[in-house]
Formats: sequence, structure tokens, C-alpha cells
Amino acid sequence: MSDQTVVDYHPMWAELGLDLPSHDALLGAVGQLFGDAYLTQDNRPKGMDYLNFVMSEVHGLRVKELDDFRKAGGKVVGTFCLYVPEEIIRAAGGWCVGLCAGAEFAYDQVEQIMPRNTCALIKSFMGFKLGKVCPYIQESDLVIGETTCDGKKKAYELLSELHNVYVMELPQMKRDKDIAMWRGEIVELMAKVEELTGKKVTAESLRASIKEVNDKRRALQRIAATRAADPAPISGKDALLATQVAFYDDVPRFTQMMNVLADELDQRVASGEGVAPMGAKRVLITGTPMALPNWKLHDIIEKAGAVVVGEEMCTGSRYYQDLVSEDAATLDEMVDDIAEKYLDINCACFTPNQGRLDDVVRMAKDLGVDGVIDYSLQFCNLYEMESNAVEQTVRDAGLPVLKITTDYSMEDVGQLSTRVEAFLEML
Amino acid sequence: MSDQTVVDYHPMWAELGLDLPSHDALLGAVGQLFGDAYLTQDNRPKGMDYLNFVMSEVHGLRVKELDDFRKAGGKVVGTFCLYVPEEIIRAAGGWCVGLCAGAEFAYDQVEQIMPRNTCALIKSFMGFKLGKVCPYIQESDLVIGETTCDGKKKAYELLSELHNVYVMELPQMKRDKDIAMWRGEIVELMAKVEELTGKKVTAESLRASIKEVNDKRRALQRIAATRAADPAPISGKDALLATQVAFYDDVPRFTQMMNVLADELDQRVASGEGVAPMGAKRVLITGTPMALPNWKLHDIIEKAGAVVVGEEMCTGSRYYQDLVSEDAATLDEMVDDIAEKYLDINCACFTPNQGRLDDVVRMAKDLGVDGVIDYSLQFCNLYEMESNAVEQTVRDAGLPVLKITTDYSMEDVGQLSTRVEAFLEML
Repeated sequence: MSDQTVVDYHPMWAELGLDLPSHDALLGAVGQLFGDAYLTQDNRPKGMDYLNFVMSEVHGLRVKELDDFRKAGGKVVGTFCLYVPEEIIRAAGGWCVGLCAGAEFAYDQVEQIMPRNTCALIKSFMGFKLGKVCPYIQESDLVIGETTCDGKKKAYELLSELHNVYVMELPQMKRDKDIAMWRGEIVELMAKVEELTGKKVTAESLRASIKEVNDKRRALQRIAATRAADPAPISGKDALLATQVAFYDDVPRFTQMMNVLADELDQRVASGEGVAPMGAKRVLITGTPMALPNWKLHDIIEKAGAVVVGEEMCTGSRYYQDLVSEDAATLDEMVDDIAEKYLDINCACFTPNQGRLDDVVRMAKDLGVDGVIDYSLQFCNLYEMESNAVEQTVRDAGLPVLKITTDYSMEDVGQLSTRVEAFLEML
Repeated sequence: MSDQTVVDYHPMWAELGLDLPSHDALLGAVGQLFGDAYLTQDNRPKGMDYLNFVMSEVHGLRVKELDDFRKAGGKVVGTFCLYVPEEIIRAAGGWCVGLCAGAEFAYDQVEQIMPRNTCALIKSFMGFKLGKVCPYIQESDLVIGETTCDGKKKAYELLSELHNVYVMELPQMKRDKDIAMWRGEIVELMAKVEELTGKKVTAESLRASIKEVNDKRRALQRIAATRAADPAPISGKDALLATQVAFYDDVPRFTQMMNVLADELDQRVASGEGVAPMGAKRVLITGTPMALPNWKLHDIIEKAGAVVVGEEMCTGSRYYQDLVSEDAATLDEMVDDIAEKYLDINCACFTPNQGRLDDVVRMAKDLGVDGVIDYSLQFCNLYEMESNAVEQTVRDAGLPVLKITTDYSMEDVGQLSTRVEAFLEML
């Protein structure tokens, strides 16, 4: 990558209808944030160079790839949630990208159409669209939403006035009949995506995409597993970035690069090399997703000398811990397997959601953590309501827990740092 | 009713485990509120005497009836939402009561287990339970919840640690397969209630309960229809109270008394008698439910000299505008009809929810309103998000609209009055 010449992407961004001055300002801010949070870390794995490069091209090379793909007739599907099965989209020849939702932007415009007390993730995705600074949604021929929460469910109605949107209905329980209902939604999605791409999903193409996406998740599982070591071979911030990038990078390339990183981490574990001293306080974070570039909490924790060793969140274990079975013989069986795998994700939108409580305790034990931080975006009713059970469960497992409710602003960094430091001291 | 002797219900309340001093304080506050809002009105219909009596016995006579019913082996089911089909419960021999959720109580305890920024309705029902001031939930052998919104869905998990709770899964769309799914939920509910009461639902019993509940809704429809007249023969406040009481009063008695009231209102319309002068400004309210004793907005509007002529809300037209078909021959067909009727309710939990927009415009025209007030409880993501479409639709129909977001506190009454008066002046 060292022989890259500097490419000017402005013509491409202009063609996508971005607001160039605003977009330049956004990229500048993200670059600054990344520099402060990431490039100041000591002893990072060499394998992180790839993710540094991806970040240096965050709205550049990957967008260019999508652009080229579409100009050659390919179709791109944008998503905001884990429940949209990438396997189906890829099996129909489409590409799937997670959309921008991790920074405050154009809130003034957003608050004209939705309440101020909407969670930051939703305000952010709407702000990126209204403010014309997200090249990924501009490259999305279709946005696939889901009915995971009240806020997103209704926000997709607003977004559908600005973009081509299709919404999947997620059930709210996990009984057999809910899985059957969800399977029906996947079949309908398949038809919708086939119509979009003009390509039929076949047993062969679906088998291949299941394998491909599983391989991506396996690579992330490998990275996650190394974090059980003390000293931790990779910072939480870097591991979080890997998951964030998983949502939009080229799948085979990302998988390959993450396996290279995992190899290096395995060697670090074998040789006892880490990013923090052995015995550094180890923290598990559980809660709402942290969309790129939301690194705030990890940064605070790790700058305070502790290390985040796991994320029980959508940008964490929920994304990669379960795989789709690769044993199916027929297309129908594969769809069964996909329906089942996706309902294994333990989002707080389900009632009850005991699986999440079990995951938190299991991860805390497997990763040898000293404490758990229960993280919620303000105004996320689902995770905020579930906090009570999460915190009780963690305490019952004999571990201290700190609850943090915040948003994407930087105004509370001082206050949060104080609280995190006090928490770490008592561990 | 004039020969009633004053009954001391304290022994009954004590037996139900209520916190007597707190409960006395609550009843005192509700009585005061009722006196100020209701008993100060001029020229009320005589038929309102029945509802005055019901309110004077708000935690008395009706609770005693439930108590007697249960002591004779009957079962009572508590609900918080329109989607729980009363017909099924009554057909199995049970009684259905709407539970308390319209006033601030024990918020200090509530905020220990759920976020401050939860809507007032949810905080209220949890506060009534935690504060031990709701005799109706104490008389409920089972509380039936539903997955209408994130807040309630998760709050039922918390409530289930304190009470016997069963949750129905409501779909989030209204396609044929959603109706089929919902039908399945009704069948499961039927089995659950049959198990509770020990009585089977039969075609005969269900036919009878469909008729009985339809009759209740028909009586409310009659009252609603008279409100199209100018002058309006009944205040909005009184009409609202009728719907609020419909949720928990004895069904045949309530229906009978509401038909007496409707007869009187018909006569008033014929003779041009009203509660406000002809030409008084006419307002339609649309939005989140107003659980008893939440009369705040109606009181403000009507004390400002306007009259509320309709409520497009769960404590309004959504409750009574649709009936279950009475043409079914078999139990299965009746269940089909119930599933269909209940999904006709246009709650903002559905996506899309065009039916509600159509209802608002139709009601505004039928009732000859001068303006619409879009009312949301703060932190209700669903209705707050839908506000944008509602307000646009109302404006497109050529009517002014005022958006009000509030809660159950009385702190903003002055500010709301100023806003409402300014709105009424420009009509």
C-alpha cells in the first residue's frame, strides 16, 4: 500500500451528491479523533496497519470500490442492524454495507423531524443523510431496515421519504412460531434482493456466501479468543475497530487481513506480549452498539490504564459469536439455518432476553474480567430498561458493575473519566 | 344511589396489601383534581351523574365487586392496552380491568429500576404497583401485557418479578401473515385464560361476549357521534371520562348507563343545547392515551373556552370505532373476526401506520374541527416520531395543528395554557 498515490475523491463525492465542505469537515474531525484515540497507543499489533489504512481511506477507497461495482451493474444494500442477513444479499450477487451512525451531525435538521430525545445512533444516521455526508448511503441502491426498536422502526418511515427503504419485521420473542415467522421474512427479503440484483439465489451461491460470512466471523472469533490472555495482546479499541470495519469492508479481503492479525495475536499470546502490563484491570463492556467512529468509552477506559477485553454488543460478540450451520444440503435448509442463527443474537428488543444475561456472565468468566461496564446510549429504552437485570446478574456473579449512559458528544468525557477511574480503582 | 350509606373500604384495601396512608393521599388528590376539572363545569348532561358516582367510588365499589367476584371463584385479568381482547376473557368467564396509569406516584422507587426518561404512563403503572396504591392490580389474578412499545415490553419483565404477568406478542405490520400470527396469539391467550378460569370458551359464550363488548363500543360511538353537533352537547372532558371508565366498569351496567347518556345527548342535539356556546372553537386531539386521572390537556383547552369534540387516541376513537363482526357461525370464525378487528386499531407501534393519518383527517372533517392538537407523552418514541407525518397530514388538509409534549406533572400547566390560548386565538 506504500506505493499508493494520493487520490482526490472529491469528484466522486460530488457525483454522489455529498455536501463537500461539510463532508471535508467531518472527515477532518474523524481523522483527528482517530489520531488521538488510536495512533497514540503503544505496541499495537502490526496487523492493525491494515485497519489504519482502511481508516485513512474511510470514505475513499471502499466507496470507490462500491462505485466501480455499481457502475459495472452491481447492487449495494445498506443496513443498520445485525439482523439483516448478509449471506442472502451476497448470494444474490449484492454487496452489503453497514451505514454511518456513530457521530453527531446535522442534529439541527434532525430535530426538526424527530424528537430531541431520540438515541444518538438514530439521530446520527438521519443526520448523516440529511447533512449529505454519508457516501455509503448514497451508494446504497436499497436500505434494509428492521423493526428492532421503536425509534428505528419509525425513523425508517422518515428515511423512506429520502431513500429507497425496505423493512424486515423482526419478531419480539424467540418461540418456534417466531422463528417460522422470521424465516418467512428472510424468504421475502430474498425475493426483494433477487429483484434488485436480477440474480437468483441458488443453493451453490448461498452455500458459498454462508461460508464466506462465517469465515469473516471466524476470523473475528480468533481475535476475540486471544483477548482472554493476560496481558491482552490487543487493545479493546483496536478489537472494536475490527468489528466496526467488518460491517462494510470487502469480505474476503477483510477476512484475510483479520486472520493475519489473529496469527500475530496468537504469537503475542504465546510469547506473553501485550498492549498493557500483565495484571492491568480487565473490563467487559455490555450494551448498545458503538458505531464507527464512536470510540469514546474504550478510549476513556484504556487511557485510564485498564484494558477492554470484550464487548457483549452488536459491535462485538453479538456480531460474530454464532455461525450459520454449513451442513445444509438444500436451499430451504440453508434458509432454516440462517433464520435460526440470526435469532440467536441476543438483542434487548426480545422479551425475555435471558440469553444476553447468560452471555455476559459467560464472557466475564472466560475473559477473566475484573469488572463490567453496562453501557447505554441515552434514550435507548430497550437497553436502559434491561440494565436492571444485567447489573443484578453481574453482581450475583460476584463482579462489580458500573452503569454509563451517554451519547456521542464529547462534553461528558471529563465526568465519565472520573467515574471510570473511580470504578477501576475499586476493582 | 342516594340511599347508599358511606362504606369504609379501608379493611378491603388493607387486605389487598395497599399502603393505606399513601393510598388515602392518592385518593384525596384524585378527588381534588376531579372536583376542580369536572364539578366546576356548567350545564353538564344529567347522565354524567353516573360517572360522577363511579369516580366517587373510584377505588371503592368497583373494587368491592371484583373482590366479591373473586371470592366467589371468579378470575380478574388486568390490562394496559387496547390490544388485549376483552371478548376472549369474558367468554372464558373472566373479568377484564384496565389498570391504573394516569398519575405520578412513587417515581423515586420507579427510577431505581428504570430510566428517568421513560414515558409517564409506564412510570405511573410501575409506581402504582411499587407504591402499593392500585387496588385493581391487586385484584388481578393475571396481568396481560403486549409488545406494543419498547418501554412496556421491557417494563413487563420488571413487573413480572412482582406480579403474575403474561405477554402477548403484537406484530409490527398489518400484512396477511401478521394477522395470521396475531390470530395465533389470540388462540394462545384463550388457552391461557381458560386455564386461569377453568372454563372453556365456547361458540355461545364468545358470541355473547362479542355482542356485549360491541354494545359497549356502540354506546360510546353514539356519544361520539353527538359531538359533531354545534354546540357540542357534552364536554370533551366528560366524553374522555366515559372512555376511561369503559376500561374497568361492569360491562352491561356501563353500556346501559352510557346509552341513557347518549339518549340525553341526542335530545340536546335536537334542541340545540350545548355545553359551550355555538361557534366555540372545536378541537380534535390525537396522540398517546390519557389514562385516568389524566385530564390535564382537556381541562386546559376547555377552561380556555374551546371544546374538545374528539380524541383520536386509545382512550378515544381507537377504542370504540371498530366492532367485531357478529356474523360468524363458528368459534374459529369468531377468532378470525377478533384478530382482524384488533389489528384495525391504528397504533403508532405499526409501520407503516397510514390508517391513523386517514382517521385523523376523517374525524377532523366529520366533527367540523377548527384545529388539531397533536399530543404526546414525553419519551414516547412511537408517537413522537409519528408526529411529523401527523402534523404534515393535518396541515395538508388545511387545518392548523399544535404539538404538545408533556407528562403527568402539573408544573407545565401555566406554559401549556399560554400555548393553547395562543393557538385557539389564531383559529
